[in-house]
Amino acid sequence: MDCCKKGDTLFFKQPPSIAGFAAVGGKKEGEGPLRECFDLLFEDNSLGEPTWEKSESSLQRYCIEQLMKKTQCTMNQIDYVLAGDLQNQCTASAYTLRGLDVQFLGLYGACSTMTEGLGVASVLAAGGMAKRVVAMASSHFCAAERQFRTPLEYGGKRTPTAQWTVTAAGALLVEPEGAGPFVQAVTFGRVRDFQVTDATNMGAAMAPAAAETILRYFQDSGYNPEQFDGIYTGDLGEVGSKLLLEILEQNGLCLKNHFDCGTIIYDLENQEVQCGGSGCGCSAGVLAGKLLPELKKGKLRRILMMSTGALMSQTTALQGESIPGIAHLVEISSVPKEEQL
Amino acid sequence: MDCCKKGDTLFFKQPPSIAGFAAVGGKKEGEGPLRECFDLLFEDNSLGEPTWEKSESSLQRYCIEQLMKKTQCTMNQIDYVLAGDLQNQCTASAYTLRGLDVQFLGLYGACSTMTEGLGVASVLAAGGMAKRVVAMASSHFCAAERQFRTPLEYGGKRTPTAQWTVTAAGALLVEPEGAGPFVQAVTFGRVRDFQVTDATNMGAAMAPAAAETILRYFQDSGYNPEQFDGIYTGDLGEVGSKLLLEILEQNGLCLKNHFDCGTIIYDLENQEVQCGGSGCGCSAGVLAGKLLPELKKGKLRRILMMSTGALMSQTTALQGESIPGIAHLVEISSVPKEEQL
Repeated sequence: MDCCKKGDTLFFKQPPSIAGFAAVGGKKEGEGPLRECFDLLFEDNSLGEPTWEKSESSLQRYCIEQLMKKTQCTMNQIDYVLAGDLQNQCTASAYTLRGLDVQFLGLYGACSTMTEGLGVASVLAAGGMAKRVVAMASSHFCAAERQFRTPLEYGGKRTPTAQWTVTAAGALLVEPEGAGPFVQAVTFGRVRDFQVTDATNMGAAMAPAAAETILRYFQDSGYNPEQFDGIYTGDLGEVGSKLLLEILEQNGLCLKNHFDCGTIIYDLENQEVQCGGSGCGCSAGVLAGKLLPELKKGKLRRILMMSTGALMSQTTALQGESIPGIAHLVEISSVPKEEQL
Repeated sequence: MDCCKKGDTLFFKQPPSIAGFAAVGGKKEGEGPLRECFDLLFEDNSLGEPTWEKSESSLQRYCIEQLMKKTQCTMNQIDYVLAGDLQNQCTASAYTLRGLDVQFLGLYGACSTMTEGLGVASVLAAGGMAKRVVAMASSHFCAAERQFRTPLEYGGKRTPTAQWTVTAAGALLVEPEGAGPFVQAVTFGRVRDFQVTDATNMGAAMAPAAAETILRYFQDSGYNPEQFDGIYTGDLGEVGSKLLLEILEQNGLCLKNHFDCGTIIYDLENQEVQCGGSGCGCSAGVLAGKLLPELKKGKLRRILMMSTGALMSQTTALQGESIPGIAHLVEISSVPKEEQL
């Protein structure tokens, strides 16, 4: 047993180390407050490709290249790549992996994919089943708009509760041991559906799942929120974040250190992104570009990171279905043993 | 270390046990040679639902209910459900899991999802991170036809190389130890693309990936094909199966005991399914409905099971992209120790 399971939460005896991280982004991301956090930024969101779908694959490719460069690894040293995205049949990831001769596990967790992947990568590393695992996720505004809403050329009006799909990819390298940051614990999500049917209000649809995962984690761990430098959600945006705090308060948990990657990645006042960023690339970019570097430097010592996903499709939306949400949580610390914190 | 990794293949020291299995199918599956193998068969493929997408979710729901009944488990005893399907954004699985209060890891491996899920479930069980994991996959002919090709009402003519998407779901319960059958080893797939662009010839697109995984497994294990009662692929169909054997022969491996679930599940002479069955439900149904029961009875003693997936989407097909394939392999035996075989 390389871990101890309390309730739903896996606590690793020897916490896996996140040996490297890389984030690449597009134009709007380069104009936002995190411009200095990305390893690469593209002025032209097409990345020179003829379709937005291929552009997203290119984003992933550049991201994994940056990761290999920064960690001085080569792809043949990687045991597994776990990756996912929002495209139908996850083709951004599949077509990226076509060019990399490595074992591939495709994940689908909508915008929760980054922490789903980091969680499974940690399981593989902690279980002694891999020496090096890459977890990666991406999204692309133009590919997502066309697929889930309307083509860009249509010029559809955005609602006030809408969020802006982030054009970014994030990739992490996970190893069984090392210099950290360290994955201390993982709580995988359960699907929650509070009957939200408005596909332009994803934050509201995902908030109940995020609340449920946080409550389970604190119940399982016995910790309290003040013991963390920050509790980060993936892409609830402004509306979803407010709802999250309300639901938690109704359940007796008061969060004063909650941050949402969707409101960190853009300047909400000036970038016309309505309620904030969304997409797998949102939490992937913020985690790989900002939070992990800060953990590495010791500027952050201990955080909870929870990517949040809305598990609907355009078909289910057109069929009038409500939107189920899910949220996978990972506890990450700057030092290997929690007692040292 | 609960496993030994040779090359790409994980060999489990304490092989996880497949404690239960259930398969449910539709009308055509009930008219085929495996009619006695399914736990439930539906005459009406709508299962009483207003959309094909919901019908597929119902298939999954019935399947997991059968699994719980047969194993005398309840959902609150299950640590994780790993599930996937072919619908855009994997909504068949997400909407099924909405009704089950359990931790959910969404997978996307196209038709390779059954063994991807069984592989990850085995990793969780062997790593001491779960007591009970369910791996599940499904497909539905009508949902897949509309999404990937044309709506049924269109009456599109099928090509001779086409395959028939199986309407079925299969679910397995994996535990760290037990009475078997036992998962001895897992080799996860690498993406292979031999530039097939014909979306009505998926078997040809997937055969190179299947060949590559088999070759890696035999290289890693040192075994030879004669040591197995059968080497099963997911849904290569007649064309893909021939190509697989050709590619393997070119690489010095002669398979005399290869079977493809796509040609087992239907009567190819009389059921008008062209080259055979396909879809996640094809290998899931055959594994859960036929192969695992035969392993349990000792009628089969040792097999390789390898679901095969074509990682394209309708969008990539319309954009003229070729079709990448992947194949995940699982070695399953009737007794816990390979030496006893």
